Amino acid sequence: MRAAILSIGSELTSGQTVNTNAAYLARRLQEAGVACARHLAVPDEAPVIVDAVRETLAGHHLVILTGGLGPTFDDVTASALAQATNRPLRFVPEVGRRVRLFYRAHHRRLNRLALRQASLPRGAQALPNPVGTAPGIWLELNGPAGGYHRTLVALPGVPREMRAIMERSVLPRLRRMAGRSSIATRTLRTVGLVELQIQEALRAVRIPRVMQVGLYPNLLAVDVRLTVTGGSLPSARRHLNRVERALRHHLGEAIYGQDDQTLEDVIGKTLTRNRLTLAVAESCTGGLVSDHLTDVPGSSRYLIMSVVAYHNRVKQELLGVPEATLKRYGAVSAQVASAMARGVRRCAGSDLGLAITGIAGPGGGTPRKPVGLVYMAVSDRRGTVVKRYQFHGDRLAIKSQAAQLALDLLRRHAANT
Amino acid sequence: MRAAILSIGSELTSGQTVNTNAAYLARRLQEAGVACARHLAVPDEAPVIVDAVRETLAGHHLVILTGGLGPTFDDVTASALAQATNRPLRFVPEVGRRVRLFYRAHHRRLNRLALRQASLPRGAQALPNPVGTAPGIWLELNGPAGGYHRTLVALPGVPREMRAIMERSVLPRLRRMAGRSSIATRTLRTVGLVELQIQEALRAVRIPRVMQVGLYPNLLAVDVRLTVTGGSLPSARRHLNRVERALRHHLGEAIYGQDDQTLEDVIGKTLTRNRLTLAVAESCTGGLVSDHLTDVPGSSRYLIMSVVAYHNRVKQELLGVPEATLKRYGAVSAQVASAMARGVRRCAGSDLGLAITGIAGPGGGTPRKPVGLVYMAVSDRRGTVVKRYQFHGDRLAIKSQAAQLALDLLRRHAANT
Repeated sequence: MRAAILSIGSELTSGQTVNTNAAYLARRLQEAGVACARHLAVPDEAPVIVDAVRETLAGHHLVILTGGLGPTFDDVTASALAQATNRPLRFVPEVGRRVRLFYRAHHRRLNRLALRQASLPRGAQALPNPVGTAPGIWLELNGPAGGYHRTLVALPGVPREMRAIMERSVLPRLRRMAGRSSIATRTLRTVGLVELQIQEALRAVRIPRVMQVGLYPNLLAVDVRLTVTGGSLPSARRHLNRVERALRHHLGEAIYGQDDQTLEDVIGKTLTRNRLTLAVAESCTGGLVSDHLTDVPGSSRYLIMSVVAYHNRVKQELLGVPEATLKRYGAVSAQVASAMARGVRRCAGSDLGLAITGIAGPGGGTPRKPVGLVYMAVSDRRGTVVKRYQFHGDRLAIKSQAAQLALDLLRRHAANT
Repeated sequence: MRAAILSIGSELTSGQTVNTNAAYLARRLQEAGVACARHLAVPDEAPVIVDAVRETLAGHHLVILTGGLGPTFDDVTASALAQATNRPLRFVPEVGRRVRLFYRAHHRRLNRLALRQASLPRGAQALPNPVGTAPGIWLELNGPAGGYHRTLVALPGVPREMRAIMERSVLPRLRRMAGRSSIATRTLRTVGLVELQIQEALRAVRIPRVMQVGLYPNLLAVDVRLTVTGGSLPSARRHLNRVERALRHHLGEAIYGQDDQTLEDVIGKTLTRNRLTLAVAESCTGGLVSDHLTDVPGSSRYLIMSVVAYHNRVKQELLGVPEATLKRYGAVSAQVASAMARGVRRCAGSDLGLAITGIAGPGGGTPRKPVGLVYMAVSDRRGTVVKRYQFHGDRLAIKSQAAQLALDLLRRHAANT
C-alpha cells in the first residue's frame, strides 16, 4: 500500500509553521505497516487543494490529508474535497449534534460557523473528534468500472485533534487494511560521534540486500535507521538483530538507545534502577537540560532540584563556588564547572551533581574564551569529572549541543555508578 | 515567480525527522519576495528523486532542493539531478580542492568518498559551503527552443550547512531575480485567546480584497498572519497598518508582538527598559520557562537565577515555603505558588519573582487536583498575583501551555511595573 501525506495550510508553505504533523503521521503509518511515499504541502486555497487531492489520489492507495477542517473562514478543505472527488457536501445531523454537545460541554456559545464542520462529502464517514469540534473524514473512492480503489482520510490540522482521531479511529482501520506487514525498522541512536565515523563502522558490517541504512544527524546525535522491506517479519527481525549486534560491537557506548528512546529516558531508567538522585546546576544551557530531564514521566522521583545560576552571586551563595575560584579562573572554567557540580550536589543532598557553564553567545566571547566554549562536570561521592568542549553555531545551537553532551556525560557516569 | 521546495530524505518521509529545513527555506524565500507554492518530500531513492525533480521543475520557476548531497552512500541527489536534467556529472577540480582544504583545516583524514561531493552536473555552479564539505549547486535550465527558463538550487540537508549556503550565496541572487517584490506580510502574535475569539474580532475589521488573513494556533498562542499580494509596497504597508491598528483596538494586550518576536523577546525588552531583574521558581514546567527566557541574547542581564524545585524539600529549604502551607494546601496550590514566587524573589534579591506549580502528569492527579491543574504567581514589592489554570493534553503539552501562560503573566506584569 503506497501512502501520501497531504498537508493543507499557507502557514506551512510560507514557513511560519513547521510541519510536525506530517512527521507524526508518517511514523504512525509506518508502525501500522504502511510506507509513506511522499509528503506534499500546499496553501489553503481551494483550487490548489482540489488539484493536490486529485494528484496525490492518482499515485497512492491511501492519502492522509490534514488541515483546513476547522470552523473558520480559511478552512476550505471540506468543500475542496467535495469538488475533487465529485461528492457534494451534505449536512450530517449526527455530526451537528456532536458539535453542539461539544460547545455545551465546554460552556461555550455555539458559533454558527462551527456547524459548517458537520457538512461532509457524500458517502464519507465522520471520525469522532474526542478533543475538538472538527470531525475527521474517511472516504472510500472507486475508479470508473472498479478500476482502482483509494482511501482518503482528512483530519484537522490542530496537532492534538489530529492525533486523537488518528489514534482512536484511523490507525485501527489501517492496521486491518495493511494486514501482516513486511516492514520492520529499528533505529539505533548515537551521541557524540559524527556521521562519517558511523559510516566507517558500517563499512565493517555486512548489510543484507533487503535492508536499507539511513544516517540522520541532529547536531551531535546521529540516528542509524535500519529498514527491512520484503520477506517475513521473523526473517526481518533476524536481519535487524544481527546488524544491531555488529553495530553495537563497533560503536559501543555511543549507542545510547533505540527507536523512540531519548537520552533523558535512558538516564531516568538508569537512575531509577540504581536508586540514585540528581541535582543540576546550569549556566549557559539556561534550563534546557532540566527541561529535557523533566520531560520523562516520574522524573520527580530522582531529580531533586535544578538551579539556573546565571548570576555569579548565585554560583557563590547558593552553590558555594569560592569567590577566589571565580576571580582566578572566570565563570567559564573547569574549576567553576567542578565547583558548581559539587555545590549543587551538596545543596540538594543528592547522589549526583551535574553542572554546565559556558558562553552561548552571541556576545561575551574573548580570544581565549570564544563563544561556544563550554565546560561540564559530573560529581558523585567518588569525585568529579570535567569535560571541555568548543561548540559552533548560533546561541540556540550552542545551548542544544551543550545539553546533548551534558546529558550524555550524565548517562555514561550514571551507568557506571 | 513560483517556487517549490523539494526535500530529499527517507528520514523525512518516514517521519523520523521533522522537516524544519522546508519551513526555514519558505520563510527566507518569502522575505526575498519569492512565494513558495508547495513543499514536496520524497525518500532518498534515485528513481524517485529523478521523477520528483522533473515534476517540480515542470510547474515552478524555481526549485530549491535539500538533502542527499553529503559524502555517504545514501547521498544520491547529485547523480539523480544529473539524470533528471540530462547533465552528466563532472568532477570540478576547484571544488575538490576546497573539500581537501576543509578536511585539512579540521584535522580530519580525507575520506575518499568525500571527494564525490566535487562532482556536479554539467553547467552547474558550485556554491561554497563555509561550514562543511558538500557544496550547494546552482543550475539554470532552459527548455527546448528557449520554451521556459528554470532555476534549480540544491543544498545539503544538514541545517547548519543549508542555512550558511542559503544566506551567503542563494538569497543575494534570488533577491536580484525577484526584483521589487509586491509581497508584504505581517504577523500579529497573540497569547491567551482561542482561534474563534480572534475570528470574532476579525469580523469587525474591514479586510481589503488584496489581503489574506490566516490564523495559526500553537496551543494557547495564535498568530494572525496578514499577507498582501499585488499593488505597490507602500500601498501594501498602508493596508497592513490600518488592519493592524483595528486588530490592536479589538484584541488589546492579547497581542504581545509581531513577526519573529517571541514572548521572551518582549519580556527581555521590557525588563531591560524598566531596569528590572527576575528570578524564577519552576515545578511542573521543569526548566522550560527558564530555557525560553535564556534563548534571548543578553538575558543574563536581568535573569538572576532560576530554580527547578521538583522536591518539596527544595521548596521549603531554598524558597522558604512554610512546611505548614505545603501540608495544609498541598504543593499544587495558590498558597504554595505565591510562597514560591515570594521566596525565589527574596532568595535572588530580584525585583520580580515568577513561580509555577502544577501536575504535568500522566500520574499524580486526583479528583480534586486533576492532571493539568497549574497555579502560577508573580511577585514584586507591591504584592503577589496568582492565577489558576486547568490545561489539557499530554505531559509535554501541559508543560508547554503552562510555560506560555507563565511567560504571558510575567509580560503583562512587567509592562505595568
